Amino acid sequence: MSAFLFDKNLFHQIDTNAYNFNSEGILFPEVGKNLILRPLSADDYDKGFLEVLQELTDVGNVTRDQFLSRYHYMKACDGSYYIIVIEDIIKNLIVGSATLVIEQKFIHECSVRGRIEDVVVSQNYQKKNLGKVLISTLCAISEKLNCYKITLECKDNLLPFYENFGFKKELNNSNYLQKRFNKS
Amino acid sequence: MSAFLFDKNLFHQIDTNAYNFNSEGILFPEVGKNLILRPLSADDYDKGFLEVLQELTDVGNVTRDQFLSRYHYMKACDGSYYIIVIEDIIKNLIVGSATLVIEQKFIHECSVRGRIEDVVVSQNYQKKNLGKVLISTLCAISEKLNCYKITLECKDNLLPFYENFGFKKELNNSNYLQKRFNKS
Ligand SMILES: CC(C)(COP(=O)(O)OP(=O)(O)OC[C@H]1O[C@@H](n2cnc3c(N)ncnc32)[C@H](O)[C@@H]1OP(=O)(O)O)[C@@H](O)C(=O)NCCC(=O)NCCS
Ligand SMILES: CC(C)(COP(=O)(O)OP(=O)(O)OC[C@H]1O[C@@H](n2cnc3c(N)ncnc32)[C@H](O)[C@@H]1OP(=O)(O)O)[C@@H](O)C(=O)NCCC(=O)NCCS
Repeated sequence: MSAFLFDKNLFHQIDTNAYNFNSEGILFPEVGKNLILRPLSADDYDKGFLEVLQELTDVGNVTRDQFLSRYHYMKACDGSYYIIVIEDIIKNLIVGSATLVIEQKFIHECSVRGRIEDVVVSQNYQKKNLGKVLISTLCAISEKLNCYKITLECKDNLLPFYENFGFKKELNNSNYLQKRFNKS
Repeated sequence: MSAFLFDKNLFHQIDTNAYNFNSEGILFPEVGKNLILRPLSADDYDKGFLEVLQELTDVGNVTRDQFLSRYHYMKACDGSYYIIVIEDIIKNLIVGSATLVIEQKFIHECSVRGRIEDVVVSQNYQKKNLGKVLISTLCAISEKLNCYKITLECKDNLLPFYENFGFKKELNNSNYLQKRFNKS
């Protein structure tokens, strides 16, 4: 048994049936045979986790040590990083992943808010509802953790996908700005 | 000497002159007499920290224990929460605050990104460049910590304020979505 980034029992505390998996993370047949949903594990470096992220954006050359040190930092920040993965247990291969990051605040009676980041389903596994399972699971976890809101960024073509889960653009008087730093 | 949320020596590692304070956090006279910039401290519950946040948004009733437990959680997540405050040292009063939250990633060679949150200057202290000091300090810290980008949300009237620091809207094919949960 390998350790996980967060306590898998969290799955027992949400209505997993509504999200197409049981509390062991086994996805229902209509979603995909041999596929399980679970927290990221320290072993996933060898199961193609970074290769799946590479389908989303540039990952670059990350050594096992770099991976593990980032993983253990995230785990030590207990309650902050919820990275879920879908594994094809026949191929021992990660085929999808999504991240929920929790930010602790003082405002709103010391509330917490969530952010969904780095959502990806490997090309050969797309259009099988895995994206839906990932996002609905993170939404359920956010609600369980008492987030007052969750936010994400997406490209135009994915607006309908996210609107299905109740995500909306904030219409008036709200701007999302960024500043990029040149890598030295 | 009270402890701080993060190591104040970080100020020594940025070019504080460029940001209107010295490495002790003392603001230059043109910014404001008797004003110092420093990390949030556990003592700030008694110096009106939450009252300043209340000028930004609803804070509600936060007990000392709640404040301290949130503070210690943030501190334990070493390298994640950079909350800076400006104190009027004659009145022992917090008069401004801003937060930088660092998110650790696997993508982009295990990069980090920053988010600026909960920026506020108390009404009586506005228009004295304190907002400028807060934001430019958090930008400098982000760069020092090697963030590849930082983001924030703001109202329309503050667009010119943030554009001064190099923040931009991402123009094409990018959407910022949110989902709100009803408090039970
Ligand atoms: C976006 C992504 C995660 C969706 O995963 P997926 O497993 O293929 O999606 P699902 O099979 O769960 O699709 C669920 C629903 O969303 C729709 N959908 C999925 N991707 C869509 C897209 N690009 N545009 C419009 N609708 C889309 C599906 O048609 C389906 O709708 P239906 O139930 O009415 O048939 C996946 O396509 C992906 O990884 N893309 C590349 C990386 C990326 O863009 N990540 C998101 C960055 S914001
Ligand atoms: C926004 C805020 C932090 C600015 O703080 P401040 O100390 O008053 O700002 P500064 O004195 O440093 O102003 C710096 C510059 O920005 C400009 N500026 C400040 N607030 C502005 C506003 N609301 N609209 C347009 N310009 C503004 C100033 O005119 C000044 O420009 P100048 O150097 O050309 O004269 C403060 O007004 C505030 O707390 N407002 C209420 C809470 C809030 O809205 N927070 C931000 C949520 S996104």
